[in-house]
Amino acid sequence: MPLPLSTLNTLPPADFVAALGAVFEHAPWVAQGVAEGRPYPTVEALFSAMRATVEGAGEERRLALLVGHPELAGRAARSGRIAPDSIAEQAAAGLDRLSEAEYAQFERLNTDYRARFGIPFILCVKRHGRASLLATFERRLGSTREAERRVAEAEVMRIAAIRLDALVTGEGPLRTTGRISTHVLDTVAGRPAAGVAVELVEIVSATEAVPVARAVTNADGRTDAPLIGGRPVPMAAYELRFALGDHFRRLGLDLPEPPFLDIVPLRFGVGEPEGHYHVPLVATPWSYQTYRGS
Amino acid sequence: MPLPLSTLNTLPPADFVAALGAVFEHAPWVAQGVAEGRPYPTVEALFSAMRATVEGAGEERRLALLVGHPELAGRAARSGRIAPDSIAEQAAAGLDRLSEAEYAQFERLNTDYRARFGIPFILCVKRHGRASLLATFERRLGSTREAERRVAEAEVMRIAAIRLDALVTGEGPLRTTGRISTHVLDTVAGRPAAGVAVELVEIVSATEAVPVARAVTNADGRTDAPLIGGRPVPMAAYELRFALGDHFRRLGLDLPEPPFLDIVPLRFGVGEPEGHYHVPLVATPWSYQTYRGS
Amino acid sequence: MPLPLSTLNTLPPADFVAALGAVFEHAPWVAQGVAEGRPYPTVEALFSAMRATVEGAGEERRLALLVGHPELAGRAARSGRIAPDSIAEQAAAGLDRLSEAEYAQFERLNTDYRARFGIPFILCVKRHGRASLLATFERRLGSTREAERRVAEAEVMRIAAIRLDALVTGEGPLRTTGRISTHVLDTVAGRPAAGVAVELVEIVSATEAVPVARAVTNADGRTDAPLIGGRPVPMAAYELRFALGDHFRRLGLDLPEPPFLDIVPLRFGVGEPEGHYHVPLVATPWSYQTYRGS
Amino acid sequence: MPLPLSTLNTLPPADFVAALGAVFEHAPWVAQGVAEGRPYPTVEALFSAMRATVEGAGEERRLALLVGHPELAGRAARSGRIAPDSIAEQAAAGLDRLSEAEYAQFERLNTDYRARFGIPFILCVKRHGRASLLATFERRLGSTREAERRVAEAEVMRIAAIRLDALVTGEGPLRTTGRISTHVLDTVAGRPAAGVAVELVEIVSATEAVPVARAVTNADGRTDAPLIGGRPVPMAAYELRFALGDHFRRLGLDLPEPPFLDIVPLRFGVGEPEGHYHVPLVATPWSYQTYRGS
Repeated sequence: MPLPLSTLNTLPPADFVAALGAVFEHAPWVAQGVAEGRPYPTVEALFSAMRATVEGAGEERRLALLVGHPELAGRAARSGRIAPDSIAEQAAAGLDRLSEAEYAQFERLNTDYRARFGIPFILCVKRHGRASLLATFERRLGSTREAERRVAEAEVMRIAAIRLDALVTGEGPLRTTGRISTHVLDTVAGRPAAGVAVELVEIVSATEAVPVARAVTNADGRTDAPLIGGRPVPMAAYELRFALGDHFRRLGLDLPEPPFLDIVPLRFGVGEPEGHYHVPLVATPWSYQTYRGS
Repeated sequence: MPLPLSTLNTLPPADFVAALGAVFEHAPWVAQGVAEGRPYPTVEALFSAMRATVEGAGEERRLALLVGHPELAGRAARSGRIAPDSIAEQAAAGLDRLSEAEYAQFERLNTDYRARFGIPFILCVKRHGRASLLATFERRLGSTREAERRVAEAEVMRIAAIRLDALVTGEGPLRTTGRISTHVLDTVAGRPAAGVAVELVEIVSATEAVPVARAVTNADGRTDAPLIGGRPVPMAAYELRFALGDHFRRLGLDLPEPPFLDIVPLRFGVGEPEGHYHVPLVATPWSYQTYRGS
Repeated sequence: MPLPLSTLNTLPPADFVAALGAVFEHAPWVAQGVAEGRPYPTVEALFSAMRATVEGAGEERRLALLVGHPELAGRAARSGRIAPDSIAEQAAAGLDRLSEAEYAQFERLNTDYRARFGIPFILCVKRHGRASLLATFERRLGSTREAERRVAEAEVMRIAAIRLDALVTGEGPLRTTGRISTHVLDTVAGRPAAGVAVELVEIVSATEAVPVARAVTNADGRTDAPLIGGRPVPMAAYELRFALGDHFRRLGLDLPEPPFLDIVPLRFGVGEPEGHYHVPLVATPWSYQTYRGS
Repeated sequence: MPLPLSTLNTLPPADFVAALGAVFEHAPWVAQGVAEGRPYPTVEALFSAMRATVEGAGEERRLALLVGHPELAGRAARSGRIAPDSIAEQAAAGLDRLSEAEYAQFERLNTDYRARFGIPFILCVKRHGRASLLATFERRLGSTREAERRVAEAEVMRIAAIRLDALVTGEGPLRTTGRISTHVLDTVAGRPAAGVAVELVEIVSATEAVPVARAVTNADGRTDAPLIGGRPVPMAAYELRFALGDHFRRLGLDLPEPPFLDIVPLRFGVGEPEGHYHVPLVATPWSYQTYRGS
């Protein structure tokens, strides 16, 4: 349960560190370093102080912060010997249920990366779909030691921001979440289309699509909740699939068999995990349109 | 190579029958029966005469016409003991390269059907995709002997019409062909989108999509030839897939990575094999629209 | 300034009648008749009681209620000898600034109507544009005495409902208001179009268009307030006019001169004054789309 | 009646000059100059030769060619003392039926222009609508003598090209014509909308719209002929107006009164008189879309 910033501002220092000590993995010294600077007017101000503490730390500590991060789908993760937040984050990305071949691939990548750069591969997995995660891993293997140090620290900051955002409520939140939403308009009737089944899948490859969410549109043609919301939208290709044929059949329209439009797929890419992707469907039995809305 | 109707109208009777004897499977008597009625002003008139000859024949001959048809993916077909036209037709529908499980399914269906109705299952396979073919087979197994006799004869007529259309040129063709075409419009530039790769696939099931055609749009935003043309469009669900992201990248637009729109799938059903399905894509990097055009 | 329903529920009867006595024109007896029934849980319940009071009144009183209504653009109205609410309502409909020819037309219609039906022509003018008002007047002149009595009383109820809604706040409002709103989406940029000048005009005839509202879209591509809101939307044909060319010029796009799209007019009819007409513009320099949205 | 290029190539020189002597106003020497160079393989080659003859002529002749042109809506034009082609061209642009105020405006502009630049104002009026013509006139008055000489000669070439194109048929035509066409698609029915009345008007100003063409869509949703075709499309703002409400009423759809969409105006600008402006309407009773098509 998140704590209000006002509460955190007045906790005894030890309790404050207990609450935020895990924001940076194995590095409660970051929380310790900002306890004295309280009160913070906004969550952003608190996070800025934490970032400054890291950036002001000695080289040894900063390197240790990176080295302390668990590998993705690595041995430590598989045997449960990593921090609880990391366990949850890796599981959300599906890294706890890879095939043996995939584990082997990660093992090879992890080993290569550590050999080349002296630190584990660090990535804010909540911001990536499966395909993006692997592509990023491969790409970063071709980078330089110096650039990777900078990138790894930036990813540590992203991981920490998401964790902090989940722990604290208050003014000036960190905006670490994005959204995928939709909206179906029936332009035969000139009304929102209610009762339309919608499925969101992540397109991992030409042959693999992973279900993400299902919903049915309400009287306003929208889903009661975003298909993805309250968290970063993993960078990936997605498909929204609408049971449009069923909708027009229910209204009694005279459709051919099979109908011209039955399941309508809208495929789109997400490159901005903190963005709002509103992807509506404006349709008749013989036409449709979509766009990135607002 | 098709013959002009005017030539057929003047051939010696034996040559006429040699030319058209295979239009009805194992039934050169149909061609014989119309030889004397020449000349025919149109291909339609010739076909009407053939149809009338069948309908005026005795019960025994009409039944033999049905019984003479090969089963779909049956033993005779597998060992090449069927008429050359049937071999080609079944191959075009992919029935010559089924898995063992699929052969077994057809064998079961063929046996059940023949046991129930006393004739082989007859279907104009050129008008059906794989999923439609199987669904139709299953559905017709639940019908009655009388209805199936009528349906089988109607399918024989469809098969014969397509064969005749391929053999003869001239006035009043039989319109046994349909078309799938497309057209890409770039509404950022206000111009047809040239050089866009397009793929047409048949959606057989949630996990199987069979490539049908590939093309690249020309300067007019169209493909040089229809994606399907000059033959019936098999009843099926299709997907047109456009490499839209590549198009806008080539034009130098500043797109996110991954782009919002990259491969754009347009999924549509065909229920009218002799129809024209013009399915355009009107697009920007952030929106698109399609409709059944003309 | 509207009073809360809870206040009205507890006012001394005389004050209650003073507050609501003008809801029905020249008929404070309606308010008197419902004073005793207080408290009313909702505004709707209060209005239902008023309606029942009218419907339960004797024939003479009901007729007097109709006869007491001023004519539209009539002599009494022109010389200011009508109730203040009526003055404001007629002015809002532009009936206080007609040309002499138009006054003459109303005078003729008023005289004919009163001669035929024995009552003044009554219409809730806030629900009609100029063209609709005249067309309705002409059409109703062809009706019957009985039908017109019913229609006139229904219009009196509509007038009263709008007046009551403006006087009282509280649960169960009467929903006498509608809305025209818009929203501009730039699908070249994939973003709401900010800073677009929008004008709403009422199309009175092929040659007369009356400005209704002007606005500029905000960062969300919407106008800060609806173009019409907080009142019924007069039944009429409208045109929204968007300065789309200016928008794309400001963004530095290379447009021809004149641009393909410059001022974009969206013309639509309103037949439901209490409805919400959301009429968006989804556009590029070379294409646009609109629909009745939600 | 136009002559084939092959005929022109073989005419006696005097007849050739008689046929093409009026292509350049009061300057049969241009035709004379190219008679000897025959045969010309294409109309373009013939025109290039004429252009080269002008450009190779002495200063005096070139200036005379400009000075020989009649003023627009000038005294000579009003009293019929100009070349027949010029009479027709000015009439087509409506310059023979201006109001007295408009004549006075032209007279002032003509006088100013001639005083400033020593030549009459020359413009290929077939390429301009009324508003564009006046705006261009005003703009060019602010130019320099040298620039205007060049512009005037370029306009003479445009006038000559249109005249030549109308006189000769054959390979390599000059492409002096443009087109406005349309196409109505009903996406409720998934079919072209037949029987829709369409009107094209030129928008001269906020209060003046001049009818240009009327048509009704055929079974293919198109008009039998382009709304403008076979000539340059005058640069102007246009509105296509579609009687869409009537279409859906005829189909028996249940529409409100007034319908949401009744007369649909599509307003667009033409800046390229030799271009093809295909402006389709894709519509339902509650939505529509247009784009510059191909």
